[in-house]
Amino acid sequence: MIIGVIGGASADSRARAQAFEVGKRIAENGAILVCGGLGGVMEAACKGASAAGGATVGILPGSDTAAANAYVAFPVATGMGIARNAIIVRTADVLIAVDGSYGTLSEIAIALNLKKTVVQLGSWRLPEAGKVDADLYVTARDPADAVQKAIAAAQRPR
Amino acid sequence: MIIGVIGGASADSRARAQAFEVGKRIAENGAILVCGGLGGVMEAACKGASAAGGATVGILPGSDTAAANAYVAFPVATGMGIARNAIIVRTADVLIAVDGSYGTLSEIAIALNLKKTVVQLGSWRLPEAGKVDADLYVTARDPADAVQKAIAAAQRPR
Amino acid sequence: MIIGVIGGASADSRARAQAFEVGKRIAENGAILVCGGLGGVMEAACKGASAAGGATVGILPGSDTAAANAYVAFPVATGMGIARNAIIVRTADVLIAVDGSYGTLSEIAIALNLKKTVVQLGSWRLPEAGKVDADLYVTARDPADAVQKAIAAAQRPR
Amino acid sequence: MIIGVIGGASADSRARAQAFEVGKRIAENGAILVCGGLGGVMEAACKGASAAGGATVGILPGSDTAAANAYVAFPVATGMGIARNAIIVRTADVLIAVDGSYGTLSEIAIALNLKKTVVQLGSWRLPEAGKVDADLYVTARDPADAVQKAIAAAQRPR
Repeated sequence: MIIGVIGGASADSRARAQAFEVGKRIAENGAILVCGGLGGVMEAACKGASAAGGATVGILPGSDTAAANAYVAFPVATGMGIARNAIIVRTADVLIAVDGSYGTLSEIAIALNLKKTVVQLGSWRLPEAGKVDADLYVTARDPADAVQKAIAAAQRPR
Repeated sequence: MIIGVIGGASADSRARAQAFEVGKRIAENGAILVCGGLGGVMEAACKGASAAGGATVGILPGSDTAAANAYVAFPVATGMGIARNAIIVRTADVLIAVDGSYGTLSEIAIALNLKKTVVQLGSWRLPEAGKVDADLYVTARDPADAVQKAIAAAQRPR
Repeated sequence: MIIGVIGGASADSRARAQAFEVGKRIAENGAILVCGGLGGVMEAACKGASAAGGATVGILPGSDTAAANAYVAFPVATGMGIARNAIIVRTADVLIAVDGSYGTLSEIAIALNLKKTVVQLGSWRLPEAGKVDADLYVTARDPADAVQKAIAAAQRPR
Repeated sequence: MIIGVIGGASADSRARAQAFEVGKRIAENGAILVCGGLGGVMEAACKGASAAGGATVGILPGSDTAAANAYVAFPVATGMGIARNAIIVRTADVLIAVDGSYGTLSEIAIALNLKKTVVQLGSWRLPEAGKVDADLYVTARDPADAVQKAIAAAQRPR
């Protein structure tokens, strides 16, 4: 199972702590973590997964794998900028959004377009913004709940 | 000037009428229209621009230019699926969102990430969903207002 | 009909003169010219097409349409770097290679992979490098011959 | 260190045996193997790396990670078709080409364009096709020689 973690490159300490815990639990459940490979939420999630001995894949916007954060085991250099967000979504079976700004919103929207579940933790309140499929955009209480809901969604037949 | 028109491939008659009018006014103002090249809002906007003698560019998700709607003068076949949304946004100086679902939301989010103005007409209510820059995400009353606001934004120095 | 012109961003005066003539004849035959939008062979071909009143589409590697050469009527900003070469090939019905280096070679190879004809004029001598389909990789004597062969190939049913 | 292995999805038993040996030696040297994730040379190389306990990343053309061969540990679904070849090249520090057809040629050309070394084993004879930088396009005698030359090139300062 591959779980995507999406969220901002700049994040406050609360969001980073949540992302660390999300990453840790992804690894403890034996899933691969895929993310955008940069800082903030992405780095904290990779750090958590690494701490639990898990594998981390970072799909980078730039052309150089050296730009990956220190906890990405397998960097992928796309050279495509923000268009790489679609690759993160396609690679993940399910996604967890922690905090995040416009880039995260684009990933959420692409996931919903591709009918992949997004579990959100302190991220965009999309139901208030228009018609959103409640089965696909799910709110979590805390990191443990987020990972549990993500795994359940990924195991559901599509 | 290049103005992007984004919106759903399936759209009701009201959204299509608005998109036609938006496309027509883009052409009347001498701007190039860029869109995703398919049906619904995209087709109606291209039809409006064509009717007014304007040029239309369609950035298609698939590999075959024959998939473009009949009013696309210059089709571009990306073969990248939804990742082509980033190319529409990068090519446009400013964007007008008419109606639309998740794909449109991804284009709005990418535009805001790249600090390009989006003028919306019956599309996503983003301020209700989280922190959105009010200078970049602007609501229009009608098609005339949308095109006027888009042109004003594109002419503003960045 | 859409004809791709591929070749280096730096080109000597002979290659530029050939590219100008190729572009001019593409326009005179009522076809759209698509290219990479930058200098050298691309600029000369666009200049030739423009001089004959033809339409030119430039699929740029960067994020800013302002990087297009002065003879590109319809710039497309991909932000994908060299990966945009696949978009040029997909958009063109047939391609003409004038001179060119590694970037041009990548476009030729992608075209052959997608079973599109490439007419070459002073470009790579691929039959000497390995097994190449002689129906797909055609050598032209001069610009007039190149455009004639390209049009014939594009009109052939696939 | 990340070493790319490129070559055809259909390959004869000799090319597959060479690719297996290349993959095995990449893993024995502690490097990560990146490839296109499909069959033929790609599958044989992943199988070799897996047999030696190494890590394998597969950058797939399609939208579904399930299309990866059985020896890809970390699949990446790009949904970009052949444009994903640029991502393989950007991700690799150096590339080894085994056999291969047009797709492989496109990867070689992109690598040379980005000034990355390609070590070839029974692949395209590019020096005969035009001006090629002999420092960047290197011929190997056998799989052991190929991996040794690739590692040496990747360790050279750029």
